[in-house]
Amino acid sequence: MRGAVKDGFDGLARELDSRICAVPDFPKPGILFRDITPLLADATMFGRAAETLAGFAPPKTDAVAAVESRGFIFGAAVARMLELPFIPARKPGKLPRKTASARYVLEYGEGELHAHADAVLPGARVFLVDDLIATGGTLRAAAEIIEKLGATVPAAACLIELESLQGRKHYARPLKTVLQYR
Amino acid sequence: MRGAVKDGFDGLARELDSRICAVPDFPKPGILFRDITPLLADATMFGRAAETLAGFAPPKTDAVAAVESRGFIFGAAVARMLELPFIPARKPGKLPRKTASARYVLEYGEGELHAHADAVLPGARVFLVDDLIATGGTLRAAAEIIEKLGATVPAAACLIELESLQGRKHYARPLKTVLQYR
Repeated sequence: MRGAVKDGFDGLARELDSRICAVPDFPKPGILFRDITPLLADATMFGRAAETLAGFAPPKTDAVAAVESRGFIFGAAVARMLELPFIPARKPGKLPRKTASARYVLEYGEGELHAHADAVLPGARVFLVDDLIATGGTLRAAAEIIEKLGATVPAAACLIELESLQGRKHYARPLKTVLQYR
Repeated sequence: MRGAVKDGFDGLARELDSRICAVPDFPKPGILFRDITPLLADATMFGRAAETLAGFAPPKTDAVAAVESRGFIFGAAVARMLELPFIPARKPGKLPRKTASARYVLEYGEGELHAHADAVLPGARVFLVDDLIATGGTLRAAAEIIEKLGATVPAAACLIELESLQGRKHYARPLKTVLQYR
């Protein structure tokens, strides 16, 4: 089962979409889960997805940040492609030293993200990468942490955007996405 | 505070070690935690670590697998560098379709890892990448899952090996590590 795709998907978006499996009622009833593991299992498509995300990095980017866990996959790939530092935003209890944190409510559940307080220098321009934006809660929390540390988030990029959840509005910062599902 | 390092660390290992922060009593008393976030924050060192791990891939590798969450950082970077598929081994409840799984006991706690049953083809040669081997439990569980799916794990590579925990013995398969701490 595939989700509806936005009109005007170009060739790349169509190809990427063909490697994303829409699984109904996961992790709970009513949620249509977008499973990216078939895309990751296709080296060419994984590469094209990572290259597209990397292409959204703004000029003079100082670092790439990503949210645990799936975000690490694209975030780390993009950081290496751009030869930039990588900043992991993690769930509570994972980082051993002093952190900055922000809470969020997401599509199913709520939580808190942390990054080490020394993970980013004040004034740094951080490019935020994630696999998917749903309600925008985790992406917003990650941006808030970076901003608390005195850095800025001039751009974020996600492979998938679930438009009906209006995460773009909640995130309320510059955002580019590769595949938009209604 | 830094941990003791094995005699014979070469220049690269010394440089990588200088970017790893040893944090005592995390996540619980008696555990000396190796924090790799300063290394990730240094683009040159992150790159050299990923290149070194990628260099351990055996001939005719078909895919790279890694364990959630920190393993995704190096695993995804290595998969992209080698232009190979990426297979995530995840904690329970994260993968929406049919999985293969294996249980493990690790340095502090226990758990279960899963990979999608269609993540790897029978006969595939999978290169397993992780940031750290402690008791070897998670790495072994990841290898067991791949083997249950009919594939093989001709090599695994970790950035850090905690030798006193004898993970290499428990893992009981070919393993290369970059930095060995006693």
